[in-house]
Amino acid sequence: MTAPAGRGRPRDRATDLAILRAGLELFIERGVEGASMEQIAKQAGVGKPSIYRRWSNKEELIAAAIETLVVDEVQFASVEAAETQSPSALVEAAIDSAAAAATAPQYRALVARVYGSAVSHPSLLAAYWRRYVVPRRQVATRLLERAQQEGSVAADLDLDVAIDMMAGAVTYRVLQPDPPDVEEMRRYLRAVYRQIGLLP
Amino acid sequence: MTAPAGRGRPRDRATDLAILRAGLELFIERGVEGASMEQIAKQAGVGKPSIYRRWSNKEELIAAAIETLVVDEVQFASVEAAETQSPSALVEAAIDSAAAAATAPQYRALVARVYGSAVSHPSLLAAYWRRYVVPRRQVATRLLERAQQEGSVAADLDLDVAIDMMAGAVTYRVLQPDPPDVEEMRRYLRAVYRQIGLLP
Repeated sequence: MTAPAGRGRPRDRATDLAILRAGLELFIERGVEGASMEQIAKQAGVGKPSIYRRWSNKEELIAAAIETLVVDEVQFASVEAAETQSPSALVEAAIDSAAAAATAPQYRALVARVYGSAVSHPSLLAAYWRRYVVPRRQVATRLLERAQQEGSVAADLDLDVAIDMMAGAVTYRVLQPDPPDVEEMRRYLRAVYRQIGLLP
Repeated sequence: MTAPAGRGRPRDRATDLAILRAGLELFIERGVEGASMEQIAKQAGVGKPSIYRRWSNKEELIAAAIETLVVDEVQFASVEAAETQSPSALVEAAIDSAAAAATAPQYRALVARVYGSAVSHPSLLAAYWRRYVVPRRQVATRLLERAQQEGSVAADLDLDVAIDMMAGAVTYRVLQPDPPDVEEMRRYLRAVYRQIGLLP
């Protein structure tokens, strides 16, 4: 692991990551109620001041951990690619990794914990939304706009609704009592994208 | 409150309901981890044996409480109506009550708790799915099949995927940081149903 430029000394970056990993693990295992700054410090092998220098509360810490460590379940494309390449080709190219990410047991557990904290810990959901979801929705919106221009997505479709139907279906599906395997999830994602008009 | 025929004596039925109400309240307030059979008994004003005579564990009790007490967020139609009346007319007629139910703070809190327990307490999700979700999906499937026969829903659409896209979008939307008001939810539901082909 090389420290990214401008992100401080390598030792600081290693401490960041140890804290974030401990925060994410404890959140998935115990939920936000069950994870405390003390436990995160202990599991990361650092003192509490090292944590509070970086994050003022566990909600911000957990949101930062999700942003930094969680593999994208659906990362269609970079901002640049979304402006220039074929929307359906980008979506097709993302299916395998999206299906693998969405069927990982850790992803399922994370989705349950994040949704589960939506009402009891709104600041965690707000931070997760701002840090993790919004940038991904911006890329998806751009892809959908271009697909509307091409005529494959209905011109009068509300794109926020369309994104909710896609993201909502996937997260709803993985939480059901019989979560799908990777192959079933590939088929499922294709059906969802076809219905919206992002795949032919 | 009159005891339904065949559901035991009125006093037993009143005890049932007191226990179910206490279970649902504690589940929404504290989550399944925070709700114990002891607390439910105390809040309902009954002894623990009265509870265990009826439900063997808190997961079954909470699932029964959801089944019995929670207003349908989307109850399109009765099984009979789904066989005979126009799918789009039934969906249109259900919009107002669906929007009111889905925007109630208690519904949002319930969805968060149910999803939040999906991985940590799979038996609760399984009981909720079997008791509450499956009967509603059967009606929705029948409506979609009839809309496919009429040609408004695509003939090759996987209906389980379509139902996930509708139910997933609504539950995903209400958990977002800026939950919609009733009027916005009416507009949102119409956009979802139009996308699937259940509304013109």
